[in-house]
Amino acid sequence: MRRLRYNVAMSLDGFIAGHKGEYDWIVEDRTIDFEALFREFDTLLMGRKTFEILRSQGPGGPSAGMNIVVVSSTLRSADHPDVTIIGQDVVRAVATMKASPGRDIWLFGGGMLFRSLLDARLVDTVEVAVMPVLLGGGIPLLPSGQRVAGLRLVSSKALPSGIVMLAYELPKGSV
Amino acid sequence: MRRLRYNVAMSLDGFIAGHKGEYDWIVEDRTIDFEALFREFDTLLMGRKTFEILRSQGPGGPSAGMNIVVVSSTLRSADHPDVTIIGQDVVRAVATMKASPGRDIWLFGGGMLFRSLLDARLVDTVEVAVMPVLLGGGIPLLPSGQRVAGLRLVSSKALPSGIVMLAYELPKGSV
Repeated sequence: MRRLRYNVAMSLDGFIAGHKGEYDWIVEDRTIDFEALFREFDTLLMGRKTFEILRSQGPGGPSAGMNIVVVSSTLRSADHPDVTIIGQDVVRAVATMKASPGRDIWLFGGGMLFRSLLDARLVDTVEVAVMPVLLGGGIPLLPSGQRVAGLRLVSSKALPSGIVMLAYELPKGSV
Repeated sequence: MRRLRYNVAMSLDGFIAGHKGEYDWIVEDRTIDFEALFREFDTLLMGRKTFEILRSQGPGGPSAGMNIVVVSSTLRSADHPDVTIIGQDVVRAVATMKASPGRDIWLFGGGMLFRSLLDARLVDTVEVAVMPVLLGGGIPLLPSGQRVAGLRLVSSKALPSGIVMLAYELPKGSV
């Protein structure tokens, strides 16, 4: 079974982007081996807003060579022939995707999609790069809702830039 | 100069307490040397809500032997002869306290007091025990406001329970 991994940068106060999607606060760290990280995945799963931010960055970047899957009830496949659009029945579609062959699936953002897939018990790991920044507002790691306790810390690594990489496995079936 | 240190437990999604002040989600870890930690401080500084939660826990606990300083415009000194109440001019009172002799001052909560003292450049460190819990709502580490970048990670330690202890120095004079 492919894993669905929510891997994001987060400010120390719990935000993954500014109110307008800003990511200028994300610290660069050349010791991060992004190529090795990307090789663990073949699919990026995201909400519409994250997709629009990604597209605004132009070609290349993290999405190059990846299957792009966007959850949206408004985007039309005809306008975006190079991406897969999930327009309804998101939980079933993601469960089917997880059961199909392939590398891991990167839940690329945003928080609302994380909340719905978390509640459906479809997310396997939460991997957070904690930035040495207090953002003071923005898009939260996780929108309001049910508490999930019993995460298992599987790795923790401080980088020279002050970024702390944390990875957790979510509890199975206890959400 | 005594340091003012914001030392709190935080859920992975950035909350220091539940909506009603709940702290039942905080994981216990017997490897934490609380006695050594408490010896670094002689004063607990907090807002009124945090004070009321502390008092509701009864005698003993973290406040035993500490000077208690509560920021509140409603509490009256006559009703609480054993604590110091700062009723106005909070920034000046805290600056005076920092300049007086003594051990470090523990900014014990809550987030609103942290925000006002952060904006006044009076907080020296942010020390967060990240709990392996997604709380899904509550009192944030830091209420909305100005961004503070350039925190310096001074220590990072993962504990057997899955708690990750992070300590940062705030930038001097650049807030």
